[in-house]
Amino acid sequence: MAKEEQLGIKVKKSEEFSEWYNEVVIKAQLAEHSPIKGFMIIRPEGYSIWEKIQGFFDANIKKLGVRNAYFPLLIPESFFKKESEHAEGFSPELAWIEKKDEEEKLAIRPTSETIMYDAYSNWIRSWRDLPLRINQWCNILRWEVKQTKLFLRTREFLWQEGHCVYETEEECEKETLQYLDEYKRVAEELLAIPVIPGEKTKMERFAGAKRTYAIEALMPDGKALQMGTSHNLGQNFAKGFGIKFLGKDEKENTPWQNSWGISTRMIGALIMVHSDDKGLVLPPRVASTQAVIVPIFKKENKEEIIKKANEIKNKMKSFSAAIDDREGYSPGWKYNEWELKGIPLRIEIGPRDMEKGQVVIVRRDTSEKEFVREDQIEKKTRELLDKMQDSLFIKAKEFLEENTIEVKDWKEFVNEAKERKMIKTFFCGDSKCEEDIKEKTNGVTSRVIPFNQPSDLGKCVHCNKEAKHLVYFAKAY
Amino acid sequence: MAKEEQLGIKVKKSEEFSEWYNEVVIKAQLAEHSPIKGFMIIRPEGYSIWEKIQGFFDANIKKLGVRNAYFPLLIPESFFKKESEHAEGFSPELAWIEKKDEEEKLAIRPTSETIMYDAYSNWIRSWRDLPLRINQWCNILRWEVKQTKLFLRTREFLWQEGHCVYETEEECEKETLQYLDEYKRVAEELLAIPVIPGEKTKMERFAGAKRTYAIEALMPDGKALQMGTSHNLGQNFAKGFGIKFLGKDEKENTPWQNSWGISTRMIGALIMVHSDDKGLVLPPRVASTQAVIVPIFKKENKEEIIKKANEIKNKMKSFSAAIDDREGYSPGWKYNEWELKGIPLRIEIGPRDMEKGQVVIVRRDTSEKEFVREDQIEKKTRELLDKMQDSLFIKAKEFLEENTIEVKDWKEFVNEAKERKMIKTFFCGDSKCEEDIKEKTNGVTSRVIPFNQPSDLGKCVHCNKEAKHLVYFAKAY
Repeated sequence: MAKEEQLGIKVKKSEEFSEWYNEVVIKAQLAEHSPIKGFMIIRPEGYSIWEKIQGFFDANIKKLGVRNAYFPLLIPESFFKKESEHAEGFSPELAWIEKKDEEEKLAIRPTSETIMYDAYSNWIRSWRDLPLRINQWCNILRWEVKQTKLFLRTREFLWQEGHCVYETEEECEKETLQYLDEYKRVAEELLAIPVIPGEKTKMERFAGAKRTYAIEALMPDGKALQMGTSHNLGQNFAKGFGIKFLGKDEKENTPWQNSWGISTRMIGALIMVHSDDKGLVLPPRVASTQAVIVPIFKKENKEEIIKKANEIKNKMKSFSAAIDDREGYSPGWKYNEWELKGIPLRIEIGPRDMEKGQVVIVRRDTSEKEFVREDQIEKKTRELLDKMQDSLFIKAKEFLEENTIEVKDWKEFVNEAKERKMIKTFFCGDSKCEEDIKEKTNGVTSRVIPFNQPSDLGKCVHCNKEAKHLVYFAKAY
Repeated sequence: MAKEEQLGIKVKKSEEFSEWYNEVVIKAQLAEHSPIKGFMIIRPEGYSIWEKIQGFFDANIKKLGVRNAYFPLLIPESFFKKESEHAEGFSPELAWIEKKDEEEKLAIRPTSETIMYDAYSNWIRSWRDLPLRINQWCNILRWEVKQTKLFLRTREFLWQEGHCVYETEEECEKETLQYLDEYKRVAEELLAIPVIPGEKTKMERFAGAKRTYAIEALMPDGKALQMGTSHNLGQNFAKGFGIKFLGKDEKENTPWQNSWGISTRMIGALIMVHSDDKGLVLPPRVASTQAVIVPIFKKENKEEIIKKANEIKNKMKSFSAAIDDREGYSPGWKYNEWELKGIPLRIEIGPRDMEKGQVVIVRRDTSEKEFVREDQIEKKTRELLDKMQDSLFIKAKEFLEENTIEVKDWKEFVNEAKERKMIKTFFCGDSKCEEDIKEKTNGVTSRVIPFNQPSDLGKCVHCNKEAKHLVYFAKAY
């Protein structure tokens, strides 16, 4: 009994969101704090989610002609200075290596633009070498001083960074948006998290970029979370690193570049959006085990029930199932554990079910129970998995819609900001004005400028000057 | 013409092996030196080989119950001191981070035993938690001072490290050997490189291990290359890190551990063993493009020949094919380029072939040409790919056998050592004797003690004392 208590989540999602999140991450064994401040250990249950994200996204970008590569972990000091805004943006977060010899100072990569573009300047000679589309899956390090939050804010994290080079501005912009769209697919199709895609304001732009695009999601506590970014770098880095190519016009040209990334942070969003007071809830497409079969047995019928459970498992071809036939744990204890770990479906089979030629299938998200005839198990399981994936997305989508509010004046803005909502409003686009908004609202910032803009723009919600865009504002992770 | 010259390999494998290797790596665009001394950039053509190794091995270890995770890049100084031999073994190669605050000194991981086992000591409580089988794919850093050789010796490299914990010594030893066997499968089934599995002598053992096992391959220059290692760590680390479990006997027990790794070094072996004076030769199973279709066209028939080439490509389902329909390059230039890049098969289709309803298929390794009827292309290609995979292995196996020599006395040993062969001989097992051998032969060391030992052992080849084992000796990479 003591064991069972220890296992479960102790606080409610609706009451102590932040503590609830930590408990889910730790108790579902997704990740934990490392003894080194600011670092995390991603445990197998958490890492398997990352593998699903990798598998989905990697296959999609390969179809788009992207190829994977690997660049060094360490970056020489001089490289950071070749694009001034970039250097300034990252310098406080760099971790430097103690010098071993007379060579230059080296830092652990906070992102790889500089080391990759130095190589690109050697690789690219003619328009025939373009477009160049390269991606790398790796670890990066940014020496954050804020408090660690597992998956959401750690000094080291895992990510992918795509870095492409193009002949023309049009092609560059087109593909910058195409990768953003691929991120939207990861969020919505795989993780069942609806997102708002759009452009970032100048203040929120990536250091050195011409335009930054992002997808933003709304968390249950009303804070927004940036799930992925795609940057049109223009020609800034190409100029800094001397990347040039002989064009079809027989002249020397400067190419156009983009870079784009998603990280293990996505796992944090996944946990927050779907999980509940019983623990993790995994959308079926990211669950490495989609159904767990729990045989309910006593000593006298153990053998035949486990045999039946195995028969059922062996029939399941179109999804991944496991059997929990451990002894010394009650069925109830097992149910709690698998609920905590977020397995989408539980299939119970006991002696009475066996007699009737049926099983009980229980959905993790709704706790709905269903008696299913043995010959229908596979079909029904497939059906329930699909339904669960869809309904998690729909539920999250409804939450986003209900908590997005259009605001016309400053007073309303301030009130809604207190309520922690996604606020849609007119904004002048000025960075000074944005700073003021942030200060006056205890940290509310612009999230994205959505692509669909009304033809008629009113006045800026804060400064009352002519608005430039309709913008989403929220407090952000 | 100038271009073509630049493209090809300038030296012969049989004459200047080391320079030939560098040229193949650089010109086939597998990897290159980074501007930071000792580091390499793995380019897409090289990284795709790593992805094949990952895909093959990862699927196999998952079937054995291993799960992936991710541990921090940085390791605190105190962790290195918990297993004294281990600390001593790695301390010269550590890269330390400049201190940011009052916390402990941190080094970039040279391997992750220490940081993983510290976590294991919290995770493992009872026999129910065992076996624990965890693997991580990551980058590691060892500050080597020797000269860099792409894929073979660089300060940073990519690898996987598996770390398992067991209840019993028997289980630990059994699985230590099982992972070694999985490495043998990667080398032989995937990379077509025959290997000799066996145990390392004390001198060559991993820092902190009880027994180290390895697979060794013989390179064309007569030097041996260690392709993978699996260490039975005994209870050394468990004791150092306080890993304990409540056994079935209700008592506190110390578990048994192993660790095992392969790295991007395998790619170096792959290149050396199979490639030739024309460039890279890829065994079909590691080639991301297995066949390239080169349409031979003039302006007037371009459209219909490219159409035909696409028809052929679309029919190919059981392997990966690409079309090279670039303009401005002659067919001959294209042939050279694809040979340099190691694509297993070339499929030529010109106007006369089209009339006859055939294509020409050319094997990369033997340059054998074959006319194949259009309706036979897929079947024939499949057949040729399988044949090529097999024949590369057989060729390498013959080379290993021809260059392995049994030696009875010291004079013979010294002579054969000059010839750069794999020397099989009796050895006393003493580290001092091994040091002497190394010194007197300009660096020949024991490679492995093969598992099959003769019942009758003679005298040690060097010191003439009673031999302990039959041992393979060679100069090693």
